[in-house]
Amino acid sequence: MISDKMQTFVSGSSAVRAMFEEGKKMAAEYGAENVYDFSLGNPSVEAPKSVKNAVIKVLEETSPNILHGYPNNLGFEDVRLALALQCNKLHGTDYNENNIVMTTGAAAALNIILKSIINPGDEVVVFAPYFGEYRAYAGNYDGKIVEISPNKETFQPNLEEFEKKLTEKTKAVIINTPNNPTGVIYSAETLTKIGGILKAKEEEIGHPIYIISDEPYRELFYGDFNIPFVPDFYDHTFIAYSYSKSLSLPGERIGYVTIHDKIDGFEDMVSALSCANRISGFVNAPTLWQKVIPHCLNESVDVSVYKKNLDAVIDILTELGYEFVRPDGAFYVFPKALIDDDVAFCQAAKEFRLLIVPGSSFGCPGYFRMAYCVPYETIINSKESFKALKEKFSR
Amino acid sequence: MISDKMQTFVSGSSAVRAMFEEGKKMAAEYGAENVYDFSLGNPSVEAPKSVKNAVIKVLEETSPNILHGYPNNLGFEDVRLALALQCNKLHGTDYNENNIVMTTGAAAALNIILKSIINPGDEVVVFAPYFGEYRAYAGNYDGKIVEISPNKETFQPNLEEFEKKLTEKTKAVIINTPNNPTGVIYSAETLTKIGGILKAKEEEIGHPIYIISDEPYRELFYGDFNIPFVPDFYDHTFIAYSYSKSLSLPGERIGYVTIHDKIDGFEDMVSALSCANRISGFVNAPTLWQKVIPHCLNESVDVSVYKKNLDAVIDILTELGYEFVRPDGAFYVFPKALIDDDVAFCQAAKEFRLLIVPGSSFGCPGYFRMAYCVPYETIINSKESFKALKEKFSR
Repeated sequence: MISDKMQTFVSGSSAVRAMFEEGKKMAAEYGAENVYDFSLGNPSVEAPKSVKNAVIKVLEETSPNILHGYPNNLGFEDVRLALALQCNKLHGTDYNENNIVMTTGAAAALNIILKSIINPGDEVVVFAPYFGEYRAYAGNYDGKIVEISPNKETFQPNLEEFEKKLTEKTKAVIINTPNNPTGVIYSAETLTKIGGILKAKEEEIGHPIYIISDEPYRELFYGDFNIPFVPDFYDHTFIAYSYSKSLSLPGERIGYVTIHDKIDGFEDMVSALSCANRISGFVNAPTLWQKVIPHCLNESVDVSVYKKNLDAVIDILTELGYEFVRPDGAFYVFPKALIDDDVAFCQAAKEFRLLIVPGSSFGCPGYFRMAYCVPYETIINSKESFKALKEKFSR
Repeated sequence: MISDKMQTFVSGSSAVRAMFEEGKKMAAEYGAENVYDFSLGNPSVEAPKSVKNAVIKVLEETSPNILHGYPNNLGFEDVRLALALQCNKLHGTDYNENNIVMTTGAAAALNIILKSIINPGDEVVVFAPYFGEYRAYAGNYDGKIVEISPNKETFQPNLEEFEKKLTEKTKAVIINTPNNPTGVIYSAETLTKIGGILKAKEEEIGHPIYIISDEPYRELFYGDFNIPFVPDFYDHTFIAYSYSKSLSLPGERIGYVTIHDKIDGFEDMVSALSCANRISGFVNAPTLWQKVIPHCLNESVDVSVYKKNLDAVIDILTELGYEFVRPDGAFYVFPKALIDDDVAFCQAAKEFRLLIVPGSSFGCPGYFRMAYCVPYETIINSKESFKALKEKFSR
């Protein structure tokens, strides 16, 4: 009764549901405060107060038929212009409203981009470890994911293998910096190299290869960074952005796509994204949230809370001798599991009331992801469990 | 550069954009009040005040991390339970939260249902005239639309042809009552017959055929009707509902699916819908709106405004001698064009500053759709234009 494509997901989701149910059972048995749940990327820092104020302001000031009515499928023009101008200010672009498509979060953004460009069999390159949903998104359009194996020393992209694996069928490369699950940030040097490799390949094969830059963690970095603006390095770039993390609004599904103005066939591409938004069933990004965003352009959650969490996680993992690449952004750490079988390792961790996610889910077996967007106390209190887990596998 | 599937839509959408631009130009030239735009199904009645109050109440009373955080992909359990209980009260069902999936409007609802059940080549039956987006939605999953030709006397479904066109490949039938574009409502008798035909066919072919009941206009009817509850007539039924019209919130993208509890493999189907919601990029219905809905269960826009509009439209069309089936619901009338070529007819109507949509867009050439969700004055003032249009084609 269920379509063949979905049957696989239904089987897979039973496993996730089982784990979720187990977590709930553990919380009931031991008390929620004694279960250390590092499994979900659900922001723990609250949305800034200004968001609530902006919602009320918009409700008070906008006619309901405008505020809640159908906008253009691309989004309200004034909102898109406000975002274009912000982009111009921050990145020196020359964008207008046509460079911005409001979307139902970054997941919708990625889907409408892929729907607009992918023919069945086209290849979409990803750098392992990568957010597992990319596989499903490409599969929605019968695209084929091509994995570049991880560089485990740094978790920076493996550019030699990348260059080798580009083919005539390569249509897009998804990058994600700051990265889920590793927290690493790609440098300008890395992006220059990626851009150079792609440009040479485009000339060879005679059709565009797009970079799709998935940037929900853009504002979450911990140090003196200047997060590079990807279109500066490569013309055929889309950015998929979300306010899920910068404003802690993941449930509200609000984000946008930027279409770089140097994309060939720019107007048709805007039109394709508009149609894809419509026929995929998104229709338009939720209108109240569209209107709220221009009031919050300079707002952000308190990133120092995540930084404090990160420092605590690093202290604990370092003291206990876990191996990991120090993350610079997002809210994840991706340490090495203590046995090769990361799935068995994460299963064993439950014995100590630790919920962590196997690296296999991210195309990188032998590791685990720890989402530290949790209360600080959860991190501190989990130390004994991480210690016991280490001891279990040191025997 | 654009995928083959999307290329068709991009070409088509240029035509729509051209019409939209023409409308804007006409408004600039003649003044917006002198252009009679009946082309869009954008509700003209404002959302009830209680909606705004509910938004503010929810913002005041809910922790931001709950309100704006990730819920279950199916939606918040308390919200789904509230809707299930309302359904039980109204329709005597025995639903719980598992029978309800919160969705990003009815378009998302239709898409996740189709994604969950359609394999490439499966047939999806629709009764002409029908909402043209069904074609795109089925195409998203490589399903094939099978049209049943219109019964032009009544615009009730043509059940003889329906029975003949069911095949081994039939997977779903989309019904839409009250109907866009005709405004007709299917009677209990009609639904009994449809259910009987489908049940017999299911037994013959040995797999389920689903009714997908698209019900965004459920509350918009003008007379002493009792809109039948489709699952009462057929077990394998999904309902796709939206608050776009009942609460005038089309831009906010909030609706739900009901999965009837007598659907075979119920649990797997819920799981498929959940996965489809996630991987299509919806992830979850916007959370603020999910939380608002239970506060507005007994609310509705002022339907008498649409009734007054309908009466005025009927008076004008009748007086001028246009032929049409009297609509009982939704906010559309679907009269016969005055020449066979409905596209040319709608083009000619622009000469009189009338914007109407060709029946061809709904699989029913020779007719036009008039959306009367406009200010009352627009209808009254359009009379001279409809008169001139009639005279033009009576020469």
